[in-house]
Amino acid sequence: MSKPIEDKSQKDTMVFEKLDVSREGAVLFAAINAPPMNLEGPELIRDLVSLIQQAETDEAVRVIVFKSADPDYFISHVDVTRIKENREAAGKLDGNPSIGQVLRHISASRLVTIAQIEGRVRGVGSEFILACDMRFAARESAIFGQFEPAFGVIPGAGAAQHLTRLMGRGRALEVLLSADDYNAEIAERYGWINRALPAAELDDFVRSLAFRVAGFPAAGHAVVKNRVNAIALASAEDIQRDSDLFLEGVSAPEYRRRMQAAMKRGFQTRDAEMKLGQLVADL
Amino acid sequence: MSKPIEDKSQKDTMVFEKLDVSREGAVLFAAINAPPMNLEGPELIRDLVSLIQQAETDEAVRVIVFKSADPDYFISHVDVTRIKENREAAGKLDGNPSIGQVLRHISASRLVTIAQIEGRVRGVGSEFILACDMRFAARESAIFGQFEPAFGVIPGAGAAQHLTRLMGRGRALEVLLSADDYNAEIAERYGWINRALPAAELDDFVRSLAFRVAGFPAAGHAVVKNRVNAIALASAEDIQRDSDLFLEGVSAPEYRRRMQAAMKRGFQTRDAEMKLGQLVADL
Amino acid sequence: MSKPIEDKSQKDTMVFEKLDVSREGAVLFAAINAPPMNLEGPELIRDLVSLIQQAETDEAVRVIVFKSADPDYFISHVDVTRIKENREAAGKLDGNPSIGQVLRHISASRLVTIAQIEGRVRGVGSEFILACDMRFAARESAIFGQFEPAFGVIPGAGAAQHLTRLMGRGRALEVLLSADDYNAEIAERYGWINRALPAAELDDFVRSLAFRVAGFPAAGHAVVKNRVNAIALASAEDIQRDSDLFLEGVSAPEYRRRMQAAMKRGFQTRDAEMKLGQLVADL
Repeated sequence: MSKPIEDKSQKDTMVFEKLDVSREGAVLFAAINAPPMNLEGPELIRDLVSLIQQAETDEAVRVIVFKSADPDYFISHVDVTRIKENREAAGKLDGNPSIGQVLRHISASRLVTIAQIEGRVRGVGSEFILACDMRFAARESAIFGQFEPAFGVIPGAGAAQHLTRLMGRGRALEVLLSADDYNAEIAERYGWINRALPAAELDDFVRSLAFRVAGFPAAGHAVVKNRVNAIALASAEDIQRDSDLFLEGVSAPEYRRRMQAAMKRGFQTRDAEMKLGQLVADL
Repeated sequence: MSKPIEDKSQKDTMVFEKLDVSREGAVLFAAINAPPMNLEGPELIRDLVSLIQQAETDEAVRVIVFKSADPDYFISHVDVTRIKENREAAGKLDGNPSIGQVLRHISASRLVTIAQIEGRVRGVGSEFILACDMRFAARESAIFGQFEPAFGVIPGAGAAQHLTRLMGRGRALEVLLSADDYNAEIAERYGWINRALPAAELDDFVRSLAFRVAGFPAAGHAVVKNRVNAIALASAEDIQRDSDLFLEGVSAPEYRRRMQAAMKRGFQTRDAEMKLGQLVADL
Repeated sequence: MSKPIEDKSQKDTMVFEKLDVSREGAVLFAAINAPPMNLEGPELIRDLVSLIQQAETDEAVRVIVFKSADPDYFISHVDVTRIKENREAAGKLDGNPSIGQVLRHISASRLVTIAQIEGRVRGVGSEFILACDMRFAARESAIFGQFEPAFGVIPGAGAAQHLTRLMGRGRALEVLLSADDYNAEIAERYGWINRALPAAELDDFVRSLAFRVAGFPAAGHAVVKNRVNAIALASAEDIQRDSDLFLEGVSAPEYRRRMQAAMKRGFQTRDAEMKLGQLVADL
């Protein structure tokens, strides 16, 4: 998807299982490629942890752009059948098995992260882009959702923290309590994303912004992120509290009943989740 | 205003003096009906307190939709001639006579509240919708105002708390210091409401959202509201401080002089308040 | 630029070196007039300090409208060749030489301040309008930028504090890390300003709002500002921390190298800064 650049020596490829990663100068482009629907399972989490670790130790890397290899799904959501493995994979970064803490690590990193969103991004996928430093989405295709409250639980990796700070109490309550799908236009209006752009312009816009930012001194990235995060990034304690409440919630009988019903209707299958907002309302 | 539903057994009517309340499944629809202009006086406050108490004790009730029986006024504002009686009525909920504390109780309740706004909503009316969990307004008819600073006082029931958190310092200062009327389009842009919708679509939109939310587990409502409120709902102390400052303010000679002048120009009458933003600028 | 008024006795002119100040009733109109490009140097800072001091001691003054005598520049940015003198001038207000503390004094003042923005407003200029109580900009001509991170430093007078609270983490990080120019339409969407208005309507809109606010009791101005600031205005400690980090940053070799390169390309000259967002990306 990226354009050819002149100096081939600067373009490298790093090998991962579920990420297509290429490097151009100080920018890494990481496309999520976990068929059939970019579920967040342990392999993808391991790759993300590994990518962050490698990038943080390489001072020449300044910016990571996250995108998707699947036009319909950016990250669908966590693989609910593998929560234990997911937590083990997440624990490899800082010792804490909460995915929310992995995402908070990304938010607090000296690395600048940009999410380039096409297709559906729900549940922990939405929490992943919220943890990135900036979010730009294709107006025609991007769809956002935090469907967890349809199963009686709070999102487990920071969504309530980020959404409340970005869009205020009323809109955050609507988005969470409705558990519905939102298009890019409303996501922009509510502050879920920085901007919705025409799909045809999105790639050029994000590339240009990524290289621009990467060209400025790293000292500026660090001090700006530190000062902004001191105001607007949830504390590790608040992230942990949401994670704990999520884990409590998924042990409730009502959660299990609804999840079984959802599985029967095709939850975690590509076709059925094209309209997940509708599916969860029919349980 | 509500559509017929199949299962009549699920549809009940509760009787109040100033509220038309009907129940459909887990949703209560409460239309404010306090002619001639939906002033918030002690009868309406008593009804609201009673409705909240009854709904909270009935676990089958999950969502309350507030609307108006008057197309021109949702809630005009507090009846300034009956502040002592209003406070007595408010005190029946939790023992605290501040209307702001009644509203904070609603914000913190396990019940999900949605304001469906047509017509004017000013002063404590605006504070009432701000205390609700979500706000949707008719693009053509809804008008918003916090006119209290035109009389030299801060709104007494939480407006400064909510507006500052929803729209930021600059827009909150504009709205409060101008004491002017704002239409639904700007209210949406500023974050005063979730969304402005065409009047013809508003009722269907809110009904659909209310039943959708009501169909999800109550455990999810509670945990989501708790976590969002922990970030974005003003403390009881801050609500109390605003209430105290309001009461101090209304004893000032300048407040009394302006209020007398406003009364002479028709303040608290239906016709004169159609353009209240203009009226308060002419005192 | 202001319209003639009936009662000439109410119209006074105050004399400053870099500000054209006229008074109409309770409103001061202060046009920044520091050719060739409205750089913020010690003379302009001295004038601003003096204007604030005089206005605060005159109880009949309620509102100050800041505008520009230069259609292309509101305030370009701080004069980087005179930082020591600037700090001496700033120290005259409250003894603290940080410009951020002068701006915070304005935010906390009983005076209501409105920025009427045409042309470019970058660096400390943007921080100045952010410290004002409200911001309205000409849709066709206003351009906003915090370019400091292009030199590896954080803005020194509060931009990160204000922008993060106004627009949230993602958009604040974009604006700061991109160090780019933003037009009035996006500035409005992001919450950097209250509203973008057609240039032809801006002057009338701001005049009308200024006189409206000035006509309401001073007690209301004070209590509203106090309560809103208690929620949304950064503490003096946070303003000081940003100022200290800025001063640390400008002593770095990388800052000096980039600033020298910028000077060679015309930084701090009127023509070259018409497209400053581009200039800083080419260093």
